[in-house]
Amino acid sequence: MSTLVPWAPAPALSGARYSAAELSAEGDRVFLLEQRLLPRREVYCTYTTSDEVAEAIRAMVVRGAPAIGVAAAYAMVLASHAARGLDPAAYVAALRAAGDRVAASRPTAVNLAWAVRRCLQRVDAHAAQDGPARHADLADLARAIHREDVEACRVMGRIGALHLPDEGTVLTHCNAGALATGGYGTALGVIRAGVEAGKRLRVLADETRPYLQGARLTAWELHEDGIPVEVITDSMAAHFLGRGEVGAIVVGADRIARNGDVANKIGTYGLACLAHVHGVPFYVAAPWSTVDLATPDGAAIPIEERSSEEVARIGDVVLLPEGVRARHPAFDVTPARLVTAIFTERGELAPGDLARAAG
Amino acid sequence: MSTLVPWAPAPALSGARYSAAELSAEGDRVFLLEQRLLPRREVYCTYTTSDEVAEAIRAMVVRGAPAIGVAAAYAMVLASHAARGLDPAAYVAALRAAGDRVAASRPTAVNLAWAVRRCLQRVDAHAAQDGPARHADLADLARAIHREDVEACRVMGRIGALHLPDEGTVLTHCNAGALATGGYGTALGVIRAGVEAGKRLRVLADETRPYLQGARLTAWELHEDGIPVEVITDSMAAHFLGRGEVGAIVVGADRIARNGDVANKIGTYGLACLAHVHGVPFYVAAPWSTVDLATPDGAAIPIEERSSEEVARIGDVVLLPEGVRARHPAFDVTPARLVTAIFTERGELAPGDLARAAG
Repeated sequence: MSTLVPWAPAPALSGARYSAAELSAEGDRVFLLEQRLLPRREVYCTYTTSDEVAEAIRAMVVRGAPAIGVAAAYAMVLASHAARGLDPAAYVAALRAAGDRVAASRPTAVNLAWAVRRCLQRVDAHAAQDGPARHADLADLARAIHREDVEACRVMGRIGALHLPDEGTVLTHCNAGALATGGYGTALGVIRAGVEAGKRLRVLADETRPYLQGARLTAWELHEDGIPVEVITDSMAAHFLGRGEVGAIVVGADRIARNGDVANKIGTYGLACLAHVHGVPFYVAAPWSTVDLATPDGAAIPIEERSSEEVARIGDVVLLPEGVRARHPAFDVTPARLVTAIFTERGELAPGDLARAAG
Repeated sequence: MSTLVPWAPAPALSGARYSAAELSAEGDRVFLLEQRLLPRREVYCTYTTSDEVAEAIRAMVVRGAPAIGVAAAYAMVLASHAARGLDPAAYVAALRAAGDRVAASRPTAVNLAWAVRRCLQRVDAHAAQDGPARHADLADLARAIHREDVEACRVMGRIGALHLPDEGTVLTHCNAGALATGGYGTALGVIRAGVEAGKRLRVLADETRPYLQGARLTAWELHEDGIPVEVITDSMAAHFLGRGEVGAIVVGADRIARNGDVANKIGTYGLACLAHVHGVPFYVAAPWSTVDLATPDGAAIPIEERSSEEVARIGDVVLLPEGVRARHPAFDVTPARLVTAIFTERGELAPGDLARAAG
């Protein structure tokens, strides 16, 4: 079972005072910031097995495609630690089984499967070594995945920031920030890089029902950094777009198909339609690990259906009458034609150029 | 002060088991269903002065443009009761002052000012009569306003229902039902009339942040009537429109300008944009009292700004980090060009035909 600890990640690979996911120095514990308790409480859960981490991903203790990729890599380190006494064949079998369970924890974000796959390639390579060496090697890889993700965010941030106005309002949806990544953030990385470059930006954050990641997480992150942020209900975006108050929309992504269709938090597709109607640019920022060339288009991306209960209840407040259910698709798909540009660490891409950029 | 009573409105002018607003037989008390407690509790507040009713309208004990029109008329009856001992000039002055305070309780819904104005015309006509006669006369008028509103809903419902598919899903926003009117409802009246005509309709109800009138009120009303309803977050509408699951969108209105621009609950404009993008008809249902020929267009409609606190908190749950504020425009304006048709008790109108229909 996980325990709540007021753990201060120092030094955290995230590059911030806080971190969505970190590995202990010994590589035997994973710390996840319990994001469901933010902004009220800032505490970490500690996990010692890969299955516990998989369950935490499923339960959204940690969320955000790149962050769950990092958490998945750290989960594999715990699996390697648990299997340190096994012979090579049994070790590989154990790690593959653990990887299957971790990868199955959520279906839409492709970073999860990507991180597990990267770890399993390393497992195949180092299986013949002794237990401690295998474990140390996988810990090195997982930390590299974490560091690379932060670096990718910084690179795509600088690239994307060039597209933001020197002064004005950027609208974002859900949380595509430090909390959704290894650190720094994808969409919020673009905004941070803009502010660091001297642009006078303010942010309208969609609250992002049902989980309120915008109200709880994006507002918290930006307020911590002193970037002006106001929260709106998801239904207000059109109003502010119609009044010309929004200069650009920037969001993250959970999976980008080969043709440039983008799966992201439910509500993203509606925003993209509204950006189109109002002639406002609609940008997607995501690490290359979010691009899934094996998925031809958005129709092939599995959209996770979560429970009615998660929509029907906020804290202890039940919103719905007894006997009435809510629908709960957790993601939607924005067609490539509504995306102005995609920012990745490989550069700024037109949605139709992904396959070519893959080389 | 108001008191909470489990009052059963029998016979209620609403035509239902419940009613948003009713006047006591003696005309000395107004009962308002405390809608902020629905669906958890079904209780009524009792008011004995017009100022108390005005405050209840401001605080959204009762909401929905036609319903607050009815409540305003009943408030004027209480003012007449309080002024029953005054001479004619003082009576008129007292009623005008009370009317000003009632009309000022909320700025956007025009039905409020319309109902007060109708009452004050009657006040001018009957001022010379004795106190009980004046009071009885105003009570008659207020009840007539209530009855007419229910009848208008039934007529526009039958007209609008002709436009609904014989089978399919209708999406609605906020609550434009029996609870938002004298009874039966505007948008929900159209759906009810469709079901009564044998159409096999199911409803997707936007939860309608921040006040959740869709989740709390629309779902409650329709579930009571046995009409299949599922709740979605406001951000999910585009997803279901994109999948072709929505046959029509029907909403109510708080004010319709002379040119056909429609002010309604925040989120309506975004829905109208999405309907347009997806080629789905977007209908507005409202009694003629919602049409404000004195307002040339949507830009001239005052949009109420309510508090950040109402967005930031659900029950006891505070959603926002300390120090972060939310924006809270309570309404938005949908331009006439995005409205397929307006259903009123005077018939089905193209948004551009309002001035001509006024005769």
